[in-house]
Amino acid sequence: MPDSHSSDNFTVTTGGLPSSRKIHVAGTLFPDIRVAMREIDLTASANEPPFRVYDTSGAYTDPAVTTDIRRGLTPLRQSWIAGRGDTENYEGRAEKAEDNGLAPGESSPVPKFDRGTRQVLRGKPGRAVTQMAYARAGIVTPEMEYVAIRENLGRAKLAGQPRPDGQSFGADLPDYVTPEFVRDEIARGRAIIPANINHPETEPMIIGRNFLVKINANIGNSAVTSSVAEEAEKLIWATRWGSDTVMDLSTGRNIHTIREWIIRNSPVPIGTVPIYQALEKVDGKAEDLTWEIFRDTLIEQAEQGVDYFTIHAGVRLSYIPLTAKRVTGIVSRGGSIMAKWCLAHHRENFLYEHFEDICEILKSYDIAFSLGDGLRPGSNADANDAAQFGELETLGELTKIAWKHDVQVMIEGPGHVPMHKIKDNVDKQLALCGEAPFYTLGPLVTDIAPGYDHITSAIGAAMIGWFGTAMLCYVTPKEHLGLPDRDDVKTGVITYKVAAHAADLAKGHPTARLQDDALSRARFEFRWKDQFNLSLDSDTAEKFHDQTMPAEGAKLAHFCSMCGPKFCAMKISQEVRDNAAATGMAEKSEEFMASGAEIYLPTT
Amino acid sequence: MPDSHSSDNFTVTTGGLPSSRKIHVAGTLFPDIRVAMREIDLTASANEPPFRVYDTSGAYTDPAVTTDIRRGLTPLRQSWIAGRGDTENYEGRAEKAEDNGLAPGESSPVPKFDRGTRQVLRGKPGRAVTQMAYARAGIVTPEMEYVAIRENLGRAKLAGQPRPDGQSFGADLPDYVTPEFVRDEIARGRAIIPANINHPETEPMIIGRNFLVKINANIGNSAVTSSVAEEAEKLIWATRWGSDTVMDLSTGRNIHTIREWIIRNSPVPIGTVPIYQALEKVDGKAEDLTWEIFRDTLIEQAEQGVDYFTIHAGVRLSYIPLTAKRVTGIVSRGGSIMAKWCLAHHRENFLYEHFEDICEILKSYDIAFSLGDGLRPGSNADANDAAQFGELETLGELTKIAWKHDVQVMIEGPGHVPMHKIKDNVDKQLALCGEAPFYTLGPLVTDIAPGYDHITSAIGAAMIGWFGTAMLCYVTPKEHLGLPDRDDVKTGVITYKVAAHAADLAKGHPTARLQDDALSRARFEFRWKDQFNLSLDSDTAEKFHDQTMPAEGAKLAHFCSMCGPKFCAMKISQEVRDNAAATGMAEKSEEFMASGAEIYLPTT
Repeated sequence: MPDSHSSDNFTVTTGGLPSSRKIHVAGTLFPDIRVAMREIDLTASANEPPFRVYDTSGAYTDPAVTTDIRRGLTPLRQSWIAGRGDTENYEGRAEKAEDNGLAPGESSPVPKFDRGTRQVLRGKPGRAVTQMAYARAGIVTPEMEYVAIRENLGRAKLAGQPRPDGQSFGADLPDYVTPEFVRDEIARGRAIIPANINHPETEPMIIGRNFLVKINANIGNSAVTSSVAEEAEKLIWATRWGSDTVMDLSTGRNIHTIREWIIRNSPVPIGTVPIYQALEKVDGKAEDLTWEIFRDTLIEQAEQGVDYFTIHAGVRLSYIPLTAKRVTGIVSRGGSIMAKWCLAHHRENFLYEHFEDICEILKSYDIAFSLGDGLRPGSNADANDAAQFGELETLGELTKIAWKHDVQVMIEGPGHVPMHKIKDNVDKQLALCGEAPFYTLGPLVTDIAPGYDHITSAIGAAMIGWFGTAMLCYVTPKEHLGLPDRDDVKTGVITYKVAAHAADLAKGHPTARLQDDALSRARFEFRWKDQFNLSLDSDTAEKFHDQTMPAEGAKLAHFCSMCGPKFCAMKISQEVRDNAAATGMAEKSEEFMASGAEIYLPTT
Repeated sequence: MPDSHSSDNFTVTTGGLPSSRKIHVAGTLFPDIRVAMREIDLTASANEPPFRVYDTSGAYTDPAVTTDIRRGLTPLRQSWIAGRGDTENYEGRAEKAEDNGLAPGESSPVPKFDRGTRQVLRGKPGRAVTQMAYARAGIVTPEMEYVAIRENLGRAKLAGQPRPDGQSFGADLPDYVTPEFVRDEIARGRAIIPANINHPETEPMIIGRNFLVKINANIGNSAVTSSVAEEAEKLIWATRWGSDTVMDLSTGRNIHTIREWIIRNSPVPIGTVPIYQALEKVDGKAEDLTWEIFRDTLIEQAEQGVDYFTIHAGVRLSYIPLTAKRVTGIVSRGGSIMAKWCLAHHRENFLYEHFEDICEILKSYDIAFSLGDGLRPGSNADANDAAQFGELETLGELTKIAWKHDVQVMIEGPGHVPMHKIKDNVDKQLALCGEAPFYTLGPLVTDIAPGYDHITSAIGAAMIGWFGTAMLCYVTPKEHLGLPDRDDVKTGVITYKVAAHAADLAKGHPTARLQDDALSRARFEFRWKDQFNLSLDSDTAEKFHDQTMPAEGAKLAHFCSMCGPKFCAMKISQEVRDNAAATGMAEKSEEFMASGAEIYLPTT
């Protein structure tokens, strides 16, 4: 059971997962890097080595580390960044009352994070300090070797092992990920490592079609509810269960302060939608937004360490009329804000007109673009329409401009799309955006199940991930209805781990099936504890089992309450197998197969 | 809120769903038939007629009917069956102590259902009293007109309305279902109406690729847990939320008695796996099973009114060796039982050898075959292997034999299958089984999420439904772990309604999108109550909304707690639309589209 670590008014979940150990794998090019992974110990009867899994949970699950959220995480990448010698410390922008939605001089009850001696970094004048710039210059960074080791789960080349079948739809999944492969994918723009130089606490991760499919969890307060403590716990809770990145979508007051707490304590990249804070600064009047206010907000968040920005630069004036006859109009917050601004001024979107100015900022901190799909469909009726694909075409145009500045880019996708229209989204995105990573919300394959939209969207997410989406943005059971609580966050994360893993399996990822096979062996051999511990949510699996078979002894039983002892298919099947072995049935099987497995026989 | 109707020690859920009315649509060929449907009343501001939905819940949600589970449901089809004049009453088989797993003379605490004056029916000597026999003879039965009206939801031809897009993979979905179309599909074996003449309480429903995708819920006690009262409530609860058929998979004692309570109170077809009861009669020793014991069990259940039997006649001796090296062997209970019998005797499966004898029984009661996939894969590793497809080939052979006897047939399918191997299952089944309806469990697209297998399987279910599966067998969160309780049953049913509806949408079913569009309009117009009432589970949708916005007033609010008032995209979008209307933007949109919608512009 997880402990909980309390600090003043904060309580966050810490402690390892059942039968699990935190391990670290050292680098080769960079011997000082230590890539964190989780190893699950299996019961002795398994005669199998510990099973390694990808671990997004950071130091909070490492018993060897004492975390203190008042101090934040260790700046893992600090020396790597300094070692490149292309950045400079400078006097950061002074915090303003409006950053937290406060009146000048107004004080807030929300405690500030103590930055201590932390300084603000930026690239030296004119320098692009991005992973893309290094990759194009042929430089393999520690971040690149870190993600290579992480994607391989520290495995040596799977020499000789047969490659599992799969349909990758053109994805190029290597048997073994080398740092050079990572460099090349980033140089081509096919993958990104979101890694703001002011967020050295991140454990590097990569987002690209030729790597493991990733997931994102959204957190953040709203004007209506939630607090700093809740958001910090949601961050740590989401990464405990496997979220690869987290977006802070806060829209209430004190969001500057909340963001600081989140970034300083986050082992994963943090994304934001800066227009939300900019809108707060103009009291929610979209028409009052200006480039200057937005630019100031970008700098503010860049200095705090946000790793990727959602920018709705594709919501062009000429596309807005295309939404006039939609069933659900514009359902993206950022998209609707920019649409309102465009109409109020009858001018082109200022994010579009200032796109190169935005690139200049992002390249100085290595912030990645997440080009927002402000015109994504909010219902099946509006899927794949002229507004959505018009914007996508513009996002493709903007991708090439960002790449010109060596800025990393991913592209956001829908939304609500019926199954038969999903693949077209991926195919168009790959073609229009030069294979830049696709980052999709769901999509939801039907509109009629509010309360179950983690499921309606997981169906679309698994499929779109299979077709080539690099990262899936989770949807929780509260979608369309309310703000997710801690339980909703876990449900959303586990549901999306399912979707992402199903996509890896279908693509034929060389290591994806190892966990399925290990769990299936445990299941067939009635190693209940191993079955629980190898699953995505061992707590829930064990709890459900115990509801009908509570006794510890039941975890040794060769049946469960579903069938009872007499009807346990796997128990009977094991007897069949023993009999088969006794009668040399395996050999018979081989003869049978060798003889062409002719199984059709005329009926008697 | 549902009432609950108590009768002795039984309490079952009754009462209508929110803002809903039970309506009945009369037949044309058969004016006396009254097809039950549900109409959802929308708020006045919607200016929309009541919305009709398919209704599986029977009389329990009809305030005009007083149900009493001690008496059972009204035998709706009794006069239709009698009217055909091809059946006879006879002295049914005498109930035996072993039918309930009791010793001779032993009494059971479980109360018996009082059959009153009910008599047992069978077809007159040599007569096939099946819907298939009538269909082939060119006869349209009341059952056929009932399902035609039901599939159309009582709508007149959707004249002039554009057909929604979709990819049907060869399914032939008519704009409007006529009784003649139903007859033709049944005659061809492409659809079935499970309707035992001894279960006249059923409201006829159809299972076929060219109709709405259906779902099944499994209930039933096991040796370890559950009771009559629980199972009766699970039946009524499952149909309340949309289960089209229910399988009673009981394996403990008193299963004859439990089955009688279930059938007499079920408005939907009931399926069973007779080998389970037969095995109880030989104290769980598979090798002691005989054709005589099995045959007696078929008669026993036929006389009670079971509508379809799962028969594992495809588990042939020669296939069993093919499972010897699987990761999870044989995971079908029935399959493992028959495999054990075959090996114990080193003889061909007696269900295969006596298949024509079984057909003779089924045709006398109009019981449909559900040809069991006893060798389905229990893990991704075993998917689409020689054992699975060998059995499927035999099921195709047996389908043609059943059709020779005018017996209706559907084919059971896997199981655990990664996404890229799903379509091959449907394509092979359609080709090998002459387009007989496919009835699949999931499939689960990954093995690593016990506790979430309703979701891992809903992904596969939605896809396989899209590709052509006619009915989806639900999986609950307890799969692999324990026996589902009432909450698990509801979660499984709603999850599978999502999968089935997503499949209908993707196939381009002419009426599937109507509910999505109605709900999306309610969502965009902030008609919260309508959004709840149009959803698959209005109780949960409203509860989730109220967790963060409890006040009744919040249900009139033009925002929710997700974004708060300032950031509600749809609120802003409505302002955009008003502005658009004011500035004639719809017209601009048309000009824009007329001009070829040229949206690419060089960047500034």
